[in-house]
Amino acid sequence: MSAPLRLGIAGLGTVGIGVLRILRKHAPLLAERTGRQITITAVSARDKSKDRGLPLDRYAWEDDPVALARRDDVDVFVELIGGDEGPAKDAVEAALAAGKDVVTANKALLAIHGQELAEAAEESGRALRYEAAVAGGIPVIKSLAEGLAGNDITRVMGVMNGSCNYILTRMESAGLSYADVFDEANGLGYLEADPQLDVGGIDAAHKLAILSSLAFGTVVDFDGITLDGIERVSIEDIHAAADMGYKVKLLGVAQKTGRGLEQRMQPCLVPDSSPLGQLDGGTNMVVLEGDAVGQIVLRGPGAGEGPTASAVLADICDIARGVRGPVFGKPAKTLTRMPRAHADLPAPYYLRMTLEDKPGALAKIASVLGEAGVSIDRMRQYGHEDTMAPVLIVTHSTTPDAVTSALAAMGATGVLSGDPVALRIEAV
Amino acid sequence: MSAPLRLGIAGLGTVGIGVLRILRKHAPLLAERTGRQITITAVSARDKSKDRGLPLDRYAWEDDPVALARRDDVDVFVELIGGDEGPAKDAVEAALAAGKDVVTANKALLAIHGQELAEAAEESGRALRYEAAVAGGIPVIKSLAEGLAGNDITRVMGVMNGSCNYILTRMESAGLSYADVFDEANGLGYLEADPQLDVGGIDAAHKLAILSSLAFGTVVDFDGITLDGIERVSIEDIHAAADMGYKVKLLGVAQKTGRGLEQRMQPCLVPDSSPLGQLDGGTNMVVLEGDAVGQIVLRGPGAGEGPTASAVLADICDIARGVRGPVFGKPAKTLTRMPRAHADLPAPYYLRMTLEDKPGALAKIASVLGEAGVSIDRMRQYGHEDTMAPVLIVTHSTTPDAVTSALAAMGATGVLSGDPVALRIEAV
Repeated sequence: MSAPLRLGIAGLGTVGIGVLRILRKHAPLLAERTGRQITITAVSARDKSKDRGLPLDRYAWEDDPVALARRDDVDVFVELIGGDEGPAKDAVEAALAAGKDVVTANKALLAIHGQELAEAAEESGRALRYEAAVAGGIPVIKSLAEGLAGNDITRVMGVMNGSCNYILTRMESAGLSYADVFDEANGLGYLEADPQLDVGGIDAAHKLAILSSLAFGTVVDFDGITLDGIERVSIEDIHAAADMGYKVKLLGVAQKTGRGLEQRMQPCLVPDSSPLGQLDGGTNMVVLEGDAVGQIVLRGPGAGEGPTASAVLADICDIARGVRGPVFGKPAKTLTRMPRAHADLPAPYYLRMTLEDKPGALAKIASVLGEAGVSIDRMRQYGHEDTMAPVLIVTHSTTPDAVTSALAAMGATGVLSGDPVALRIEAV
Repeated sequence: MSAPLRLGIAGLGTVGIGVLRILRKHAPLLAERTGRQITITAVSARDKSKDRGLPLDRYAWEDDPVALARRDDVDVFVELIGGDEGPAKDAVEAALAAGKDVVTANKALLAIHGQELAEAAEESGRALRYEAAVAGGIPVIKSLAEGLAGNDITRVMGVMNGSCNYILTRMESAGLSYADVFDEANGLGYLEADPQLDVGGIDAAHKLAILSSLAFGTVVDFDGITLDGIERVSIEDIHAAADMGYKVKLLGVAQKTGRGLEQRMQPCLVPDSSPLGQLDGGTNMVVLEGDAVGQIVLRGPGAGEGPTASAVLADICDIARGVRGPVFGKPAKTLTRMPRAHADLPAPYYLRMTLEDKPGALAKIASVLGEAGVSIDRMRQYGHEDTMAPVLIVTHSTTPDAVTSALAAMGATGVLSGDPVALRIEAV
């Protein structure tokens, strides 16, 4: 058996403690599987005195994660601190500079600084691995970078923020407004300290940016994502979409178009009978499409102590087995900077509006849609008791630009009460 | 860039041609991803003159796959011949003896001879990889052996024969009998030359045996699988199950029990709203459960040129990157021979019977069930126009043995017309 693999673990929150638990519980199993003992040399966190439910006295303690990252008796630096700046970034840089392998669960760090960190890792011949950064316990990084290595990837897509999916499915099941469910979820501790990371789609977009880079061999480009969160999804839209056979999901989609790389994170409609449509609660789902394999769907827990620690352990075990590959599937210096494609791939759209109930109102809307080149596939006008008529339209496939024009023109007709809503219907 | 990786490919059927196509189409992409050129030195198949839609004159030809496996200019022997004996086995053994890495899509070979081949590979320090042997394009071997390496695996389960799933879903959608859909599928070329491999559950059981070994660190034990195919699934059961909220699936399940390793391949009922219940047509699904990760569900195409070739390429790319690990997740010599557990894990059961329509008939059945310790959760008796009354029962959780006793006792009451049917309802 080879020499032990010695870990330094920085960050002892939920995930860090989960990693410690697995390493203590499964030490013999991990040694059998990897051919090496995996040991912990030292740990680091903000507060040494906090009771974390586990005795830590067998490990050396470092107040400073950078000092931990540089220790001579650490082979692999495990970064579970979080955040795209500050101690997490400093310590990962220090570890790579000191010739350590790095395992991290930090999606923000990779989405923002992935390219420079990948170059640093590859220059020093070390691994920088991040299975836990995307979709929690689902081995999606491994599936994409290794399992589908023979494919030209054509599209990557997913529901990758469990909190948003919880909110959307809870709104539907309980018939509650976004604001009510947001408060409920926040009270239950389901949201990040800055909830905007969740409901604004930022956390999910970090993950999408990482998947895009791996899938398409491009420099990770978080800022190139067209980003829209779930704050404006109303219970009316959820009910109306259900009535037309759809679910509302915060869906990330990345694909190459003739004009470059299109990356979108936005609320979309998906058929309620599709795997994505049937994804309830905090579960994550990633859909990978390649020219040879067709479509692969991966589903599992996107967060939590056990699932995230499981993904961290997968990376640690790979390093123990000697597996080191390029960080984003091909050498970082060969990753391309693909132009950002303006989101212009056509799709059907769902439109919801409230018409003033007077003769000719619907004709005006239909006429405006026709002028914008948007044709109607299905339309429903609901019975109503006041002078306002709710109307739903599912269009034939059309471009986002045509929808934007149509919405503006509809607003100018004077027959609408309030703003119309448009949501893309993604083919899944 | 390292020296090229030189392949010898034996078997030029659908999968072999698919592998050639990917290697020709994506040569630069594969070289970028693996850091090496991947080239084909020589190929082998039964009939050199057959038109396979691709020019083969750039490759050396070997009539004998064993000779191909031994060529000095071949680094990796790719076995796509099939069958658990004969040329496939001979050639894989020859390749390992000659110090070649081996990639195979051959589930039968690994299910029957996996242990000896793994020992041979590990003794010579070579890889023996088989991603394509289980669930086609789904990277399930990689997900289980590497992605979940930090977990004690608690259960593995799946629908892994697309032809059977096609038959079962087609029976339901078209309302046709098993015999009619079997003939239809056979006529369309959906079944193996020996259809018993598909409908008898043998092909799926080969795959389950491989997953079991990986999951539980046990010597692959195909003969230890309790095996039942789909031939006796009737359209009446499919309709009745649907009426109670279930789908009938040929489901493989492997899990450790207090008494050993339980491996079953049999038609089961699963809730129609579960991911397994919603799996239509030829798609495969594998469910992996671990103590840390919880449940991961993988879905994708289980067969076909592109998907299977995609999986073969994943193995080739790993070898090109220098990844070599133990064949079944830990060294073959440390795999345990776990006792075969008699299938005794409790579950609810679905029972269907036809009662003679006379007073006291149902009471007799209920009484017999009670005596066998089987309690009734739900019961439906259907309206009928003759003297026979169809009855469906969903039991509370009970053991397979109790159900067997109850069925025998029901037969002895003299109030049934024909044999009662029992199907396990698997918790998924």
